[in-house]
Amino acid sequence: MINYSIILGNLGNTCDRFLSSGYKDQPSKETMIRQASEIKGVKAVELVGTWDITRENIEEIGSTLAKYGLGCASIIPDHFSQKRWGKGAFTSKDPSIRAQALEETCTAAELARKLGCGIINLWPGQDGYDYIFQADHRLERRWLIDAVQSAAKAYPDIRFSLEYKPKEPRTHSTMARAADTLLVARETGMPNVGVTIDTGHSLAGGENMAEAAVMLADFGSKLFHLHFNDNYRSWDDDMIVGSVHFAEYIELMFWLKEIGYDGWYSMDQYPYREDGQEALRASVEFVQGIEAMLDDATVKELRAIIAIGDPIEYTRWLRSKLFRNR
Amino acid sequence: MINYSIILGNLGNTCDRFLSSGYKDQPSKETMIRQASEIKGVKAVELVGTWDITRENIEEIGSTLAKYGLGCASIIPDHFSQKRWGKGAFTSKDPSIRAQALEETCTAAELARKLGCGIINLWPGQDGYDYIFQADHRLERRWLIDAVQSAAKAYPDIRFSLEYKPKEPRTHSTMARAADTLLVARETGMPNVGVTIDTGHSLAGGENMAEAAVMLADFGSKLFHLHFNDNYRSWDDDMIVGSVHFAEYIELMFWLKEIGYDGWYSMDQYPYREDGQEALRASVEFVQGIEAMLDDATVKELRAIIAIGDPIEYTRWLRSKLFRNR
Amino acid sequence: MINYSIILGNLGNTCDRFLSSGYKDQPSKETMIRQASEIKGVKAVELVGTWDITRENIEEIGSTLAKYGLGCASIIPDHFSQKRWGKGAFTSKDPSIRAQALEETCTAAELARKLGCGIINLWPGQDGYDYIFQADHRLERRWLIDAVQSAAKAYPDIRFSLEYKPKEPRTHSTMARAADTLLVARETGMPNVGVTIDTGHSLAGGENMAEAAVMLADFGSKLFHLHFNDNYRSWDDDMIVGSVHFAEYIELMFWLKEIGYDGWYSMDQYPYREDGQEALRASVEFVQGIEAMLDDATVKELRAIIAIGDPIEYTRWLRSKLFRNR
Amino acid sequence: MINYSIILGNLGNTCDRFLSSGYKDQPSKETMIRQASEIKGVKAVELVGTWDITRENIEEIGSTLAKYGLGCASIIPDHFSQKRWGKGAFTSKDPSIRAQALEETCTAAELARKLGCGIINLWPGQDGYDYIFQADHRLERRWLIDAVQSAAKAYPDIRFSLEYKPKEPRTHSTMARAADTLLVARETGMPNVGVTIDTGHSLAGGENMAEAAVMLADFGSKLFHLHFNDNYRSWDDDMIVGSVHFAEYIELMFWLKEIGYDGWYSMDQYPYREDGQEALRASVEFVQGIEAMLDDATVKELRAIIAIGDPIEYTRWLRSKLFRNR
Repeated sequence: MINYSIILGNLGNTCDRFLSSGYKDQPSKETMIRQASEIKGVKAVELVGTWDITRENIEEIGSTLAKYGLGCASIIPDHFSQKRWGKGAFTSKDPSIRAQALEETCTAAELARKLGCGIINLWPGQDGYDYIFQADHRLERRWLIDAVQSAAKAYPDIRFSLEYKPKEPRTHSTMARAADTLLVARETGMPNVGVTIDTGHSLAGGENMAEAAVMLADFGSKLFHLHFNDNYRSWDDDMIVGSVHFAEYIELMFWLKEIGYDGWYSMDQYPYREDGQEALRASVEFVQGIEAMLDDATVKELRAIIAIGDPIEYTRWLRSKLFRNR
Repeated sequence: MINYSIILGNLGNTCDRFLSSGYKDQPSKETMIRQASEIKGVKAVELVGTWDITRENIEEIGSTLAKYGLGCASIIPDHFSQKRWGKGAFTSKDPSIRAQALEETCTAAELARKLGCGIINLWPGQDGYDYIFQADHRLERRWLIDAVQSAAKAYPDIRFSLEYKPKEPRTHSTMARAADTLLVARETGMPNVGVTIDTGHSLAGGENMAEAAVMLADFGSKLFHLHFNDNYRSWDDDMIVGSVHFAEYIELMFWLKEIGYDGWYSMDQYPYREDGQEALRASVEFVQGIEAMLDDATVKELRAIIAIGDPIEYTRWLRSKLFRNR
Repeated sequence: MINYSIILGNLGNTCDRFLSSGYKDQPSKETMIRQASEIKGVKAVELVGTWDITRENIEEIGSTLAKYGLGCASIIPDHFSQKRWGKGAFTSKDPSIRAQALEETCTAAELARKLGCGIINLWPGQDGYDYIFQADHRLERRWLIDAVQSAAKAYPDIRFSLEYKPKEPRTHSTMARAADTLLVARETGMPNVGVTIDTGHSLAGGENMAEAAVMLADFGSKLFHLHFNDNYRSWDDDMIVGSVHFAEYIELMFWLKEIGYDGWYSMDQYPYREDGQEALRASVEFVQGIEAMLDDATVKELRAIIAIGDPIEYTRWLRSKLFRNR
Repeated sequence: MINYSIILGNLGNTCDRFLSSGYKDQPSKETMIRQASEIKGVKAVELVGTWDITRENIEEIGSTLAKYGLGCASIIPDHFSQKRWGKGAFTSKDPSIRAQALEETCTAAELARKLGCGIINLWPGQDGYDYIFQADHRLERRWLIDAVQSAAKAYPDIRFSLEYKPKEPRTHSTMARAADTLLVARETGMPNVGVTIDTGHSLAGGENMAEAAVMLADFGSKLFHLHFNDNYRSWDDDMIVGSVHFAEYIELMFWLKEIGYDGWYSMDQYPYREDGQEALRASVEFVQGIEAMLDDATVKELRAIIAIGDPIEYTRWLRSKLFRNR
C-alpha cells in the first residue's frame, strides 16, 4: 500500500522567466491544503520553507493540515528563491552565505520536528555554476558535504535527502545525477543522509530511473524519497506523470518493490496552464494504476522477463497491457 | 486497412563499428523473404540496392517474392555502404561521384519499374558533413536538389521519397528534419518528389512525429512513405516499435488517418541481438494494435480532446487505455 | 562594417521560475539606454512591447534614444509575458485571443513607423503546445500564417521577422527551427516576411547556425535579423557570446559575409547573475573580434578550406588562431 | 612535461554499421607503429587485445615497438568486438561468458606485464542493456564489481582503469559516467582499480570534463587514465581534439595540473574519412598547444578567475587568447 503525497505549491500559481506574474491566480494556503486532501490516496504534503512554512506560521499550517487530515511528508528548505542564494547557497564563494544556507537547513529541521515530519528534502538549486572556469570544483563539493554533515549530526532524528538535477536554474548543478549525489551522501558518513530521485530530473539527466533507484538502494540503502513528474527527457518540464512515459514508470515501480522502498511517492509538478488539483490527481491516478497492475502474478512475470532479458518477451508483455481488450 | 511492409535487410545480420562481423549469422535471401511473408499483415518488402537487388539478381528476387506472395514496397538505392560514397554521394565535392549517385538512383528506378514498385526511397546517408568549415552550405544542397530533380524528370511514373535523419553516419546530414527536406522536395518543382518519415529519425531530431506528418501533408501533399522504429530520442537506436513510446505513436497514426495517408507502413529496425523475424513481428503487432484502437468512436474522442486542448482530458483518456481492466 | 544592437531588457533585471523577483534590481529605462549607448559599436536597441515601449511612452523613449544617439533596431511585440497569451497567441484556440495577437502586432508596427524602425521581430513564445494530443497541427500553423500575412499586408514598409525556438516556454514551439519557419514565411507569400536566427535557439535546436543562415538566404532571401547568445546546445541558456563556442561563430560570420547579410547583429542574453552592461559588452567585443579576424586574406583561406573539405586543413587553421603566439 | 600516447588502431581502417568494410584501407601493424612514432611527442601506444596484441604476436609487437622507440601505455582487452560478448561480457546473463570476460582481462594483464605496461584499460562496451526490463539492475553491476575485484587482486602490480561511456554499442552502459564508475571502482576495495575519462564520453554524458576529473581525484585518487577526442555533445563522434571545443579543454587541463595528474594523455579517435596519422597529429598538437599555454603565469590568472567566479573576467581572459594579435 503506497503512501502518496504532493508538494503543496504545485496547487498554486506557477511562473516562468517570461511570465513572471504567473499563468494563474494564487489560491490561499487553506484552499491548497483542502485541495490536496481531496485527492484520493494523498496522505501528506511537502512544504517549502519561506513559501509555505516559517517559524511564524507553523502553528497555523499545522492545525490546517490536521483539520484536513494530512501529514507533512517533508520540508524543503528554501535555498533557491531568494536573491541571497543567487550565486549559490552551500557552495557560495561567500562564507556568510554558506553559513546562512546551513542555518536555513537547521531551521527547517526544527520546523520538521514540530510537525512530526521525518524528512528534510534538500534541493539547493542555486548550487552549481553557469560558466567554464567559474566553479572551484574541489572546494565547492567539499563545502556542500561539510554543511550536510553538520546538519545531519545536529538532527540525527531527521533524514536529510539530497535531490539532484542536472541543470536549472544553473547550467550545471553540483548534485547532478544519482551517482554523484550518492557519493556526496556517503562522504558525509552519516546514516541519516540519503538521496531523493525526482523522476523528471532523472529522465532529463539521461538516467534509467529504475537503475538509479537500485543503485541508491544497493550502495548503502540511500534511496530516501521520491518526486514524480514527467517530461520529454531533455528538460525538467514537470508534466503530469504518465503523460509521456509508461513502461519506464512500470520498471521503476517494479524495482521499488524489489528493493523494499517504503517511503513516500510524492507528486512534484508545474501545471503552468492546467487546473492544479486536476493535474495532481491525474498523476496520482497514474501511479495508482501501476500500483494496482503490479500484483504478485505480474511481479513474477516481470522477474521472468528480466531473468531472460529478451526484448521479444518484454514487448509481448507490454502489448498485452497496452491492447488488453483486443 | 493498413498495408504493412518491412525492410528485408532487417531480417539479416547487423553490425556496428565495434563488431563489424555482426552479432548474428546471415540467412539466405530466400529465408529472409519467407520470414517476411510469415509475419501476418506484411504485404511487401523494401529492398536495398546492392545489398538486396541488382541488375543481375532481379529476376531471381522477383520470382522469390512472387513465390511468397510479397510485393516490393520500395527500392532504397545504396548511397551509403560503398567506399566511393564515403565523402558524400549527391553532395560529394567530386563531380564524378555526384554523377554516379544519380546513376545509382536511375538504376534503382529501372529495377523498380521491372518489379512494379512505385517508390524509390532515397536515404543518402553519406550526404552531409562532420566538421565545421567542411561543407559548402550553398552548393551542396543545390547539387542534391538538381540530382533529385533530374531523376524525377527521367522517371515520372516513380515517386522519389527523401528520407531525412539528423546525423549518422555523418555528424550532420544534408537532409536532417522534415521541414528542410520538404524545402528540398518543393525546390525540385516535381510532383513525384516527396518525403519519408522514419519515426526514429524524427524522434532523434526533436520532432513531434505527428506534427511532421501533418506539415508534409499540408504543404503540398508531400508525405510519401513511412519507416517505423523506436528509440530513446537521442540517437537512431532502431528498436522494436512501441518498446519505448506509446502515446506519440497513437498521435501519429491518428493524424495519418486525418490527412488521409494511404501509403505503406514499413518497419525499419536493427535488431542487433534479437531474433529478426520476432522483432519485426513485434513491431507490426504494435502498430496493428493502434490500428485496431483507432476505430470511429476513438477518433471522435481524440478529435474532441484536441479541440479542447486540455491535458487533463488527454491523460484521463490515456489512462483509460493503459489501465483498461481496473 | 557591422551594425551592432542589443535588446534593451537584457540590461535590466532577470528572473526565472524559482526566483520570480529576479536576481538583480531593475534600473530605470534611461539608465539602460545610457548603458547601451556606452558599449562601443552599439548603434541601436531592440524594444519589447509593453515592457519597454507603448503608445503612452513612445515620445519619451524616442527622445531618450535620440539623446543617447541610439536608433531602434526592432520592436518585439509582447506575445509572451501576459496571462492572456498563456495558451497561445496566434495559435490560441480562442479566436478573440488570436485577434488580439494580430492587434498587438499591428500596434507594434505603428510604433515602429513612428520610431523609424524597420523591423518587427515576432517571437510568439506561447505559440506551441506542451502535451501530446493538445495541438491541432493543421489549424494552428495555418492561423499563424494567416495572421502574419495580414500584418505584412497592412504594413508593407515594415519587415516582419519570425524568430524560432525549439521549446520554452512551451515544450514544443510552433516555429521551432529555421526550415519550418522559412516554410511559414514563404507560405505568407509576402516579401516583407522573413526569419530571425537567434544563435542560441539554433544551437539548442541541433542546427549548424551557418547552414541555417545560408538556407534562409538561398531559399528566398529570408534572413532578416540576428540575435546572438551562447549556450551548451541543450537549452536556451542565453549566455555571453563566445563563452562556450568559438569556431561555430566564425563559420556563421564567414557565411553571413558570403551571403551579403547587411542587417543588425543584435545581442540577446539573460545575464541573470552578471552585470548586465559588462555581459553585453563582452558579447559585442567577441563578435567584433571575429569581425576583425575575417579580413580578405582570411576569407580567402577559409574559402579554400571549404573547397577542399579536409578537417586536417581546418583544424590546422584553427590552431593557428588559438595558439597564435607560440 | 606531458606524456602523449595514441590508440594504435586509430591509425587503421574504421567502419560503421552502414559501411562495414570501412572507409579506408588497413595498413600493416608496423606501418601504424611507425606512423605513431613519427608524431612528435608521442611516447607510447595503447593496444587492443585480439585486434593488436595476442599471446601469439606479443614478441613481434614488442620488438616492433622497441624498434620505433615506443612504449605500451595500456592494453585494452577486447570485450566488445566478438560475437560472444554481444549480450554482455562481465554482465552477461550466461556465467560462462562472464568467466571468459574475466579470463580475457587476466590474459591482457599477463601481456601487459610482459610489455612493461602498467595499465589495463577496461572498456566493456557490450556491458549494459538496450531495452526496458532487460537488465537485472542489481545483479549485473555486482557481477562487474566482483570480476574487476578478482582481476585486481590477481594482478596487484597492474592498474585497472574503468572507462565509462553513456551509450553505444548498448543504449545504456553499465558504466555510464564518472560518478557511477567511481562507485564501482571504490566498491572493489582495491587501490589498483580506478577510472579512465574519455573526453568525448564525458561530453556526450553531459558532464563537465574538468569537474569529472576533480571528482575522481578527490574521492580516492581514482583518475588513472585519459582518452582525448571531441564531439558535438550528443554522441561519441570521436573527432579531432579541439575541432569543436576549446575552453572546456583548457579547463580540463588546468585542473589536471591542479590535481597533479601524471598519467598518459592518450588520443582516441575514429578518423573515418581522414588521414589517420594527420588526424592524430592534429589532436596531439592541439593538446600541446594548451600545455604550452598553461605556464605559471596563466595558471595564476586562472586561479584568480576561479576564485572570483565572475564570467566577465573569464570571457575577457578567453578573448585575450582567441584574438591575441588584435
